[in-house]
Amino acid sequence: MKIRVAIAGYGNLGRGVESAVSAAPDMELCALFTRRDPASIKTVSGVPVYSMEKAFEMTDDIDVLVLCGGSANDLPTQTPELAKHFNVIDSFDTHAKIPEHFANVDVSAKDSKKVAIISVGWDPGMFSLNRLYGQAILPCGNDYTFWGKGVSQGHSDAIRRIEGVLDARQYTIPVEAALESVRAGKNPELTTREKHTRECFVVAEEGADLSKIESEIVNMPNYFADYDTTVHFISQEELNRDHAGIPHGGRVFRTGTTNGGKNSHVIEYSLKLDSNPEFTASVLTAYARAAYRLNKEGICGAKTVLDIAPAYLHPASGEELRRSLL
Amino acid sequence: MKIRVAIAGYGNLGRGVESAVSAAPDMELCALFTRRDPASIKTVSGVPVYSMEKAFEMTDDIDVLVLCGGSANDLPTQTPELAKHFNVIDSFDTHAKIPEHFANVDVSAKDSKKVAIISVGWDPGMFSLNRLYGQAILPCGNDYTFWGKGVSQGHSDAIRRIEGVLDARQYTIPVEAALESVRAGKNPELTTREKHTRECFVVAEEGADLSKIESEIVNMPNYFADYDTTVHFISQEELNRDHAGIPHGGRVFRTGTTNGGKNSHVIEYSLKLDSNPEFTASVLTAYARAAYRLNKEGICGAKTVLDIAPAYLHPASGEELRRSLL
Repeated sequence: MKIRVAIAGYGNLGRGVESAVSAAPDMELCALFTRRDPASIKTVSGVPVYSMEKAFEMTDDIDVLVLCGGSANDLPTQTPELAKHFNVIDSFDTHAKIPEHFANVDVSAKDSKKVAIISVGWDPGMFSLNRLYGQAILPCGNDYTFWGKGVSQGHSDAIRRIEGVLDARQYTIPVEAALESVRAGKNPELTTREKHTRECFVVAEEGADLSKIESEIVNMPNYFADYDTTVHFISQEELNRDHAGIPHGGRVFRTGTTNGGKNSHVIEYSLKLDSNPEFTASVLTAYARAAYRLNKEGICGAKTVLDIAPAYLHPASGEELRRSLL
Repeated sequence: MKIRVAIAGYGNLGRGVESAVSAAPDMELCALFTRRDPASIKTVSGVPVYSMEKAFEMTDDIDVLVLCGGSANDLPTQTPELAKHFNVIDSFDTHAKIPEHFANVDVSAKDSKKVAIISVGWDPGMFSLNRLYGQAILPCGNDYTFWGKGVSQGHSDAIRRIEGVLDARQYTIPVEAALESVRAGKNPELTTREKHTRECFVVAEEGADLSKIESEIVNMPNYFADYDTTVHFISQEELNRDHAGIPHGGRVFRTGTTNGGKNSHVIEYSLKLDSNPEFTASVLTAYARAAYRLNKEGICGAKTVLDIAPAYLHPASGEELRRSLL
């Protein structure tokens, strides 16, 4: 019998999970829940669409529920609430609030005896895993995380809020010289400015003061002031044509020494993603498999990727994995 | 109280574990066991040295035993035997025989209610983990493993067995064009020859027939015949001066698509190691921590890296890991 997966929320992430579940040999998509009018939603797979409240009547029909809402407004309440009834997965990514979110979800999931895996994706997620493996193997060393080249939604939104701006797309770009220095094991101390640059493609209103917009962008505190930022003004047609994708990626390094500093080692984990939400959705789907399996073994409570033994993520048996992957 | 670690075998790997345990804040080295005369061994750390048989009288003094023997002759008998009395870690790396070794060790460890983690290191080990994560996240895709640049002990030994050869060092080198093609997401089908080249530094006897030696090397079945191989004749002094290290490394790629092939993704995990045995030893030491912790929770039996939740490897608490790594 296949693992019965449901999705809550049908934005980019939800559509990514829909596609990832279709690609999984051992899973089937059984429902999509939305807070919009279900009749207004046309899914790619044709999976039935229900209003969010309907989920509570379908607890026996769903093995694991993948939550595809946002970290700012949806997940802080949605994950603890739904973990009272379902095995759940979320991609909560407000790093500073993860301990609080974990604690809230843990209460619900222990009460319902379900598994809730939070903060799944690539950062937090696969990058967190690689930081952990790196530190555990090379305790004498340094961590480095670089993001990009990729689209930052938060920075694009910040530009759009400037007067005179119609649309914008912001790329975060790692500085090649910094990457090379880390990769060479030089253990550099890098400032914010030395690690990443920011490149902005902006569509301005006709007659807007372009130099004023540019100045507002490059001097914006928190978002741009600490970076070398380049601004390009382009037309809406160019933005739609050349910047429609949502690529992202990045690298986690652990550099360290053994034998009292005599020998150096460099571990590098890198992602180059054509679609940030589709890759994140693929990670969520693999952890949905793990949540279901763990719960079948009687495990419950909140978990993160750090708590999940890798074999639970893969559809093959332990025997097959030992034969083919070790 | 610190985790009491003992080592069986004091070659390069055993010395690496000795150093790695010293660098771990939560571990102490309590004994070294050897099949040589204990009086003949001078350890770096000053840890007491005992003959192998003495281990069986010290079962209450040791939390986990790290086995540092060879896969060909030592581990197939040693690991199942010692798992009858201790939590053990080994680096068994004869890939084709891992299922058989696992089964043998599992019987012993279940009987003694101990944990035995086998085939720990980087390949098998960290590379296996990355193959698993990659396949689980991107089920529609391809795996690629490249090794090097690094010293292959097996190939160096094979050259030394040729008549007229006094000493040799062989480097396995990945082909840059192949790496670039994989990294670009081109999903190439690569032959053995297209993936790696082999470079040999050979010290010949005075008056030896160099062209005959070279021909024997490059045409040697299994080891060299399927590769483009370069042979350099050098003096013993040059070999000792320029090729004394044991560097290695490599890369595991998972390339794949989402959304029915519309978007491509590249995951790359790479290691660049100054000392192959010291890095392997560092991985063994992290998994020794996990074996001890799992056993304290009542877990027993044979395990591989695929079965171990990452958090068990790191000395910090789950709470601290969520706060600092996610």
